[in-house]
Amino acid sequence: MTGYFSDIPKIQYEGPESDNEFAFRHYNPDEVVMGKRMEDHLRFAVAYWHSFAWPGGDPFGGQTLERPWFGETMEHARAKADAAFDLFEILGAPFFCFHDLDVRPEGESFAKSCANLDAIVDIFGEKMEATGMKLLWGTANMFTHRRWMSGAATNPDPDVFAYAGATLKSCLDATHKLGGANYVMWGGREGYETLLNTDLTREAEQAGRMLLSVVDYKHKIGFDGPILIEPKPQEPSKHQYDYDVATVYGFLKRFGLENEVKVNIEQGHAILAGHSFEHELALAASLGIFGSIDMNRNDYQSGWDTDQFPNNVPEMALAFYEVLKVGGYTTGGTNFDAKIRRQSLDPEDLVLGHVGGMDACARGLKAAAAMLEDGGLESMRDARYAGWEGPEAQKMLSGEYGLEEMAHYVETTGLDPQPKSGRQERLENWVNKFV
Amino acid sequence: MTGYFSDIPKIQYEGPESDNEFAFRHYNPDEVVMGKRMEDHLRFAVAYWHSFAWPGGDPFGGQTLERPWFGETMEHARAKADAAFDLFEILGAPFFCFHDLDVRPEGESFAKSCANLDAIVDIFGEKMEATGMKLLWGTANMFTHRRWMSGAATNPDPDVFAYAGATLKSCLDATHKLGGANYVMWGGREGYETLLNTDLTREAEQAGRMLLSVVDYKHKIGFDGPILIEPKPQEPSKHQYDYDVATVYGFLKRFGLENEVKVNIEQGHAILAGHSFEHELALAASLGIFGSIDMNRNDYQSGWDTDQFPNNVPEMALAFYEVLKVGGYTTGGTNFDAKIRRQSLDPEDLVLGHVGGMDACARGLKAAAAMLEDGGLESMRDARYAGWEGPEAQKMLSGEYGLEEMAHYVETTGLDPQPKSGRQERLENWVNKFV
Amino acid sequence: MTGYFSDIPKIQYEGPESDNEFAFRHYNPDEVVMGKRMEDHLRFAVAYWHSFAWPGGDPFGGQTLERPWFGETMEHARAKADAAFDLFEILGAPFFCFHDLDVRPEGESFAKSCANLDAIVDIFGEKMEATGMKLLWGTANMFTHRRWMSGAATNPDPDVFAYAGATLKSCLDATHKLGGANYVMWGGREGYETLLNTDLTREAEQAGRMLLSVVDYKHKIGFDGPILIEPKPQEPSKHQYDYDVATVYGFLKRFGLENEVKVNIEQGHAILAGHSFEHELALAASLGIFGSIDMNRNDYQSGWDTDQFPNNVPEMALAFYEVLKVGGYTTGGTNFDAKIRRQSLDPEDLVLGHVGGMDACARGLKAAAAMLEDGGLESMRDARYAGWEGPEAQKMLSGEYGLEEMAHYVETTGLDPQPKSGRQERLENWVNKFV
Amino acid sequence: MTGYFSDIPKIQYEGPESDNEFAFRHYNPDEVVMGKRMEDHLRFAVAYWHSFAWPGGDPFGGQTLERPWFGETMEHARAKADAAFDLFEILGAPFFCFHDLDVRPEGESFAKSCANLDAIVDIFGEKMEATGMKLLWGTANMFTHRRWMSGAATNPDPDVFAYAGATLKSCLDATHKLGGANYVMWGGREGYETLLNTDLTREAEQAGRMLLSVVDYKHKIGFDGPILIEPKPQEPSKHQYDYDVATVYGFLKRFGLENEVKVNIEQGHAILAGHSFEHELALAASLGIFGSIDMNRNDYQSGWDTDQFPNNVPEMALAFYEVLKVGGYTTGGTNFDAKIRRQSLDPEDLVLGHVGGMDACARGLKAAAAMLEDGGLESMRDARYAGWEGPEAQKMLSGEYGLEEMAHYVETTGLDPQPKSGRQERLENWVNKFV
Repeated sequence: MTGYFSDIPKIQYEGPESDNEFAFRHYNPDEVVMGKRMEDHLRFAVAYWHSFAWPGGDPFGGQTLERPWFGETMEHARAKADAAFDLFEILGAPFFCFHDLDVRPEGESFAKSCANLDAIVDIFGEKMEATGMKLLWGTANMFTHRRWMSGAATNPDPDVFAYAGATLKSCLDATHKLGGANYVMWGGREGYETLLNTDLTREAEQAGRMLLSVVDYKHKIGFDGPILIEPKPQEPSKHQYDYDVATVYGFLKRFGLENEVKVNIEQGHAILAGHSFEHELALAASLGIFGSIDMNRNDYQSGWDTDQFPNNVPEMALAFYEVLKVGGYTTGGTNFDAKIRRQSLDPEDLVLGHVGGMDACARGLKAAAAMLEDGGLESMRDARYAGWEGPEAQKMLSGEYGLEEMAHYVETTGLDPQPKSGRQERLENWVNKFV
Repeated sequence: MTGYFSDIPKIQYEGPESDNEFAFRHYNPDEVVMGKRMEDHLRFAVAYWHSFAWPGGDPFGGQTLERPWFGETMEHARAKADAAFDLFEILGAPFFCFHDLDVRPEGESFAKSCANLDAIVDIFGEKMEATGMKLLWGTANMFTHRRWMSGAATNPDPDVFAYAGATLKSCLDATHKLGGANYVMWGGREGYETLLNTDLTREAEQAGRMLLSVVDYKHKIGFDGPILIEPKPQEPSKHQYDYDVATVYGFLKRFGLENEVKVNIEQGHAILAGHSFEHELALAASLGIFGSIDMNRNDYQSGWDTDQFPNNVPEMALAFYEVLKVGGYTTGGTNFDAKIRRQSLDPEDLVLGHVGGMDACARGLKAAAAMLEDGGLESMRDARYAGWEGPEAQKMLSGEYGLEEMAHYVETTGLDPQPKSGRQERLENWVNKFV
Repeated sequence: MTGYFSDIPKIQYEGPESDNEFAFRHYNPDEVVMGKRMEDHLRFAVAYWHSFAWPGGDPFGGQTLERPWFGETMEHARAKADAAFDLFEILGAPFFCFHDLDVRPEGESFAKSCANLDAIVDIFGEKMEATGMKLLWGTANMFTHRRWMSGAATNPDPDVFAYAGATLKSCLDATHKLGGANYVMWGGREGYETLLNTDLTREAEQAGRMLLSVVDYKHKIGFDGPILIEPKPQEPSKHQYDYDVATVYGFLKRFGLENEVKVNIEQGHAILAGHSFEHELALAASLGIFGSIDMNRNDYQSGWDTDQFPNNVPEMALAFYEVLKVGGYTTGGTNFDAKIRRQSLDPEDLVLGHVGGMDACARGLKAAAAMLEDGGLESMRDARYAGWEGPEAQKMLSGEYGLEEMAHYVETTGLDPQPKSGRQERLENWVNKFV
Repeated sequence: MTGYFSDIPKIQYEGPESDNEFAFRHYNPDEVVMGKRMEDHLRFAVAYWHSFAWPGGDPFGGQTLERPWFGETMEHARAKADAAFDLFEILGAPFFCFHDLDVRPEGESFAKSCANLDAIVDIFGEKMEATGMKLLWGTANMFTHRRWMSGAATNPDPDVFAYAGATLKSCLDATHKLGGANYVMWGGREGYETLLNTDLTREAEQAGRMLLSVVDYKHKIGFDGPILIEPKPQEPSKHQYDYDVATVYGFLKRFGLENEVKVNIEQGHAILAGHSFEHELALAASLGIFGSIDMNRNDYQSGWDTDQFPNNVPEMALAFYEVLKVGGYTTGGTNFDAKIRRQSLDPEDLVLGHVGGMDACARGLKAAAAMLEDGGLESMRDARYAGWEGPEAQKMLSGEYGLEEMAHYVETTGLDPQPKSGRQERLENWVNKFV
């Protein structure tokens, strides 16, 4: 341990009655839920950017957080890695995630930046081997530097496209080398500020081409984790192309990539797009593209991405219900793309933000498992659609019956279907038995 | 003329200086803009439902509008048709649009409802022949009656699905008989109130099957107008499946219908989905599925569909710019899916709402045409992407260059792309020369 | 019992492990929390309008709910009252609330409407005496009928103002006669659709005058409950004058009524105004105008008032924390201004919506009480502001020190105040120990 | 001229037909509108912060704008002042506005910071005398530095309160010395991130005390411009105390300051609070607290403050209509609290953003003046409320008639008021004749 978190012990499970704020009250890694250890269910990951690279700024204020590792040298980068692995150990989270820019100083040239990244990757490799930490996913930051201001893959300047491709290669290589389970793409600048200077058709073709190139390269190097796109509707851009799960699905279908690429769903992004979190999860599952989760919460009254640690257990339960129903994560996991508030200055705050989030997820998971094991919701749902098992219904669904046959059926039987209660309150009460 | 609008003369074009509120100041049907008559560009349609069937209710109040034709008999329906054709004549709008429920009383059985519809279709046919009015599109109201409360095509009860299919057939038949240019589907109840009782996968399959059946039937009867889906994100439902243009595109791709079905885009629905109107138009054009427009405006501060008559000319200009850029309407048109406010009680209000909307569209169209003819925006846009004409860029775009070649290019050239101004304010000022 | 709910037994407390959906798992009326029975803490009220007068319509659909008492005769009104008191008995809620329009048919004249109301008041009186039910508050519906379309007190037509005054008198009389604990005013039409036809100054004076008249009359008849204004930002109107708690406070100060009038706060209205529910409660408490609660929840993704039964316990806990902190209700209570979904057709749904809501409130109350008894949050808060006890600080707060003295203090001491952690995550984790 | 804008000539009025993007097409300073020169009507001000101190960052990206004057020395500050006055001259705007932090480097101590400010104030004074530029308002930046992270006047730490008081004094002194017409307070951190650590009552008292101290000091030094509060609902904070005009009014009434303090209204802040811009202007006018305008626009689809240059003329017209109706600005003016987009890198962009904004305002002003001179809207409005001139109505308004008299009047006359059309579309069409 390097000392930054020196007074804080490794967080242990102490059970719900514990008064120790530096203990888990619900997350018990080895506890078995639905036949699997909680650690293997939840696959928690710590996000390097928010926890180690963010200075606490917002649009109206600058740095509030003071970290000894803030600085633009390799020495700072190494100190940052030391502190990060200290936190990982304190939390007992099995995974982490990073962008290139989080972990290495920008070099004077692309090659220098790559060399910096390589050096850090080596350090990460050693630390991972020493600690057992794993990489949930790597990604490229193609939104912070001014070169990306008008997009990366969707930039009007093909040189930026080339630079993006080179960057993606370097980050895929790093992720592959570290045994990453997935590779994520969030297109913070893949969108526009004004339609007036934008050619939607060209930019979509550029984006499709880049994604095809990424998939090609992934196969070439033998990286077997999925590529994940992370939808977000807007911010920083006025409009972002990967608006939500449904939009990403249409894009993947357009370029024939729906079996190659999945989605990394973030609660805050779902909210900003006008959806509930569980909607986005259920939709991705239904479309066969569910990959992983960026677990945070958005303030419901704020119109921007607040990236807070999750803490509303009933909401967690509904989210994990969708995850469990689709069979749980395969390569994905629960990444805390969440940041402590800029007023949370102390090392303890960084630890406790994660502890609270992990406990909230654990409670949500257990409640979700209990609901699924009870089966009440699923049996009610099956009953609601049971009519579709009938022969007439099957013919309509298969297309054997078209509009004319339906009309004939309605007319000859004098059909006058009566609505049946949707029983929403009843189902909500049922859920409240478990959360 | 039947007398309801008796004091109101046919609206004539009098030019911008006119002080006559019962005159067009901008809409001059025969004026040629970009080689086409304004009437042929704009293809205005009056919406039967808002103007003739809506009693003025809102969630907290009942009927405010008193019309002699309100009632549930065929006699009322005929009186309504008389008044409607009076208004069409007064306005000189060449098209109208209707749902089955707008024009005929609900019968005691499906067959009776169909018979009522047939009778009205005959009356419409006569009136259309007499007046030259045309039908922009027909549609089925599958959201008002309680049988549809849990969806039409996406209802858990297959009998409701059958009833929906029969209803669609009857409305397609009516539309075909009246020479309708398009057929529209808005799925107000195709969505859910709570995920807890909903099976997204089943409901998407039901929706896809119904749309395939509609397309089959359309071809069978030789209806050659397109089927149009009208996206809306929510309201009345908590979530509606046809959320926005991008979502509909993904759905069409999934069921192989992207060449059969287009979209009918409404400004208010775009806003509720978090998009600008011009975004949805430009995206549909880019994806090859632009069909028609429901022209209204939403109050920017209200979180529900306000369906007001359009009146902001700069916004109209940006919308029509996208329409003209894609070549104008083919079968589509400008349908006023707009209602006068519930406090606008008088016959004059009904006329003047349309007059103002038509004038705002006409100004928007002329400004859009001037912008397109000037070419300034397009030449700037071309210049912005001009780098893509280079050989290296073309190789990246075609896929000849993959990530490795891009990385090689970046490294060997020491590439360090510099951002270029996006010039947004300059372009906005340019637009303001025309609006 | 009249039979409508005939199969449903009186709901009893059975404890958290009960699997009986027709039982309370958390609401135990006689259980003592912080020295008071839960029933006396929560003071639940059933809202007549949503539960007995609402037909299930929404802006795109009509009646879905079928109740034998729907109709416009006194016989229907009596049947409605019978069913209502049956539900009250089943639920064991001690209070109810009503508008005039909910309980009586509209008469042909104002006098007839009053006579109808009087007749129902007599029936209510008998039933209340027989059952022990109490009236939490009465109110006037001055938003549904078309006469109110442009406002009641703020109508441009003084005759409507007079009609509103007369209506208020009749409803205050009824409330007084029934021993109502409060009288509520919600101004659904006190606002505007367009500023273009509105004189804000006149309308504010009208509203102030009416409120003064109400307060005068209340004193005159000896009604000793408070007058409560219910803030809402918009819907049905584009802008409503009683936007939120802060706005109402300014209005009361303007007319010198801040000691006479309090607020009835609704969760859904808070959300629509951009506030959290607990914000509005805490602000009202801080300003000394907290009165009562309309307890429901709004869908966080819907831009209109969804009036759902509350079910998120952590949110309830934060709300009741504010209520307990200000000393609990005095005359106020927890009115379920919540409606079952329009697809919830069955009598059971009506009962279970309330059961779930009451249980959620009970859990929230108990969690809030535990937090307050623990004292952790309050002691942290006191510590955070502890510096203000110092002599220098007191001088600044009292005004003894002005800007010059502050500048002198800063300059002479070389003051350079260092920020301290706000500890948000820590506090959120602390809360999660209790919910 | 210092050279930064060297190729750009002073912007001249060339009339609507000009194709010169570096010319005004509508803003003609000496043109007389309603008896006053346009320059005197509009009183344009350039905002120092956005145009000279903002590096182009957003929450996901860093600096894009490169200015030779960026840096933390007095030399940089002087270069910045040179460039600023160059821009002022190019634009011919008569006013500017600034925060202390915009214009001077932060010193090592408060006293050093003050000394830096004094030095710049001297430079400004010379430049103002040389050029005729005037100061519309000064203000203190009490939100960027980390010391303010938990508030300035509302900070839990009284030392920060003292530091805020000292800062306010220094900025009031600077403003007074430069002959500023107003002094503005925007409380970007006067609010909270979480209610859990916040004492609303204490913080309101602190805020009230500070405002009283500011007013005292203003009188003491003989500064005769008004103090202006700038409402904003949220961002950066989760909730800001100066939420909107109505909230500020309540606060002023509470502390007896409604005759001392006015509001500076920003379009973007109005939108974020759920109001139209014209609503906030009309309300402030109605309450007697209208002071000045921060003129920008917010993107209607973005949930954060986008601070774009205004360009929608119909919206400008409605805003200036309210300004003209209240008699125009007295000390206030039209400050462009607007920033060019972060992709607008070039000096030309900075100039053209202002040119476009000034032209849009000029068109809005002229349209507003024409509407007011025509008088159509006002006469319609008067007619709508004309009934209030009647004797019965006057008695109700004066309070001579209370509820009983109203009831008596309704009953004895059998009053049944009939609604009258609100004529919204008609009025909107009327407005469209002028914009």
